[in-house]
Amino acid sequence: MQKPTSVKTWPEIEFWFEFASNYSYLSVMRIEELASLYQVKIKWCPFLLGPIFKSLGWNTSPFVLQKNKGDYVWQDMARQAKKYGLAWTQPTQFPRPSLLPMRVAAAYNDAPWIADFCRSVMQINFVQDRDIDSATVVQQVLTDLALDANLILRDMESDENKIKLRQQTELAITKKIFGAPSFIVEGQLFWGDDRLEDALHFARTVYERN
Amino acid sequence: MQKPTSVKTWPEIEFWFEFASNYSYLSVMRIEELASLYQVKIKWCPFLLGPIFKSLGWNTSPFVLQKNKGDYVWQDMARQAKKYGLAWTQPTQFPRPSLLPMRVAAAYNDAPWIADFCRSVMQINFVQDRDIDSATVVQQVLTDLALDANLILRDMESDENKIKLRQQTELAITKKIFGAPSFIVEGQLFWGDDRLEDALHFARTVYERN
Repeated sequence: MQKPTSVKTWPEIEFWFEFASNYSYLSVMRIEELASLYQVKIKWCPFLLGPIFKSLGWNTSPFVLQKNKGDYVWQDMARQAKKYGLAWTQPTQFPRPSLLPMRVAAAYNDAPWIADFCRSVMQINFVQDRDIDSATVVQQVLTDLALDANLILRDMESDENKIKLRQQTELAITKKIFGAPSFIVEGQLFWGDDRLEDALHFARTVYERN
Repeated sequence: MQKPTSVKTWPEIEFWFEFASNYSYLSVMRIEELASLYQVKIKWCPFLLGPIFKSLGWNTSPFVLQKNKGDYVWQDMARQAKKYGLAWTQPTQFPRPSLLPMRVAAAYNDAPWIADFCRSVMQINFVQDRDIDSATVVQQVLTDLALDANLILRDMESDENKIKLRQQTELAITKKIFGAPSFIVEGQLFWGDDRLEDALHFARTVYERN
């Protein structure tokens, strides 16, 4: 007799992302529906790109430092967003500071509302073209999710939560992550929104094999 | 009465590539079959990456300069090659000098044997893991294509042919190309083997619209 499939747990994908990263926007908007299709569980892993860029000797995004690549990225983003049916506005500020919403995401990365929270923050940055690193904005996002925004925001001031995001970033470096979005499945790294489907397919395939 | 379709010319994709570039290997191996599927004509545009990297202050490939990204690229290449059913060997020398075969490709970029020549050179670099920048190797490739190898190689010593590759590289810079492979369709730039299908789809779509 076969075990009922509901007893099985789903395989897991680590999803490493940054609210300041435009290609992370595509993955944040796409991952939940796709992961459900592949029957893969998402582990939300927010981390800061800044320290990783700094370790490479860069003081900002390579899309700012390399002019031709930067110009290209906005053409590519418009085409990719259209291909995936996603709204898109080229941000007037890039990369945007993202510390406060990143701290919330790190502190509540396994909350049932994490996907909704991340999509809302990303849409403010890359559709509404508005600042995301402000208490007012984050409070509104949390309130719209029917959460106790004041409680959560007060909680962000604790050392524990500040350290949590820093630790996530250090963990990303340990895992040899060099850009966002990145995906890790069974210790294998996949980089870029273009590899999301491959990473999910790999998670499902390895799981079926075992 | 409809015009017979044979009267129509096919839309064109400019394919900018480098024999030293591993992601160009994927596109060189894939493009002819795909372009035929989309009914798009390929304009083969070899160019040197070295001067473009130099203009960014780099003395070699970013895959060498950024260690984590470099380590990742070889994992990604193995997976991508497998996905596309292509043979793959991680080269023991990277990036390999490519000047002589690049000159041949630039001089004969509209020859009927250009696709075969490019695939052979790429396979020597990325499957056989052998040097490509030698008269012996290029001579063998040309001979295998039933061409007069001695005549072609002698021709590569002319100033005209040396200048041709240099001009191609300058043209690439004018077109704001910053990496390889790149594709240009109707003035729009697409970067990376991952965008090959998108570029071909765009060529076909714009053509149908007109």
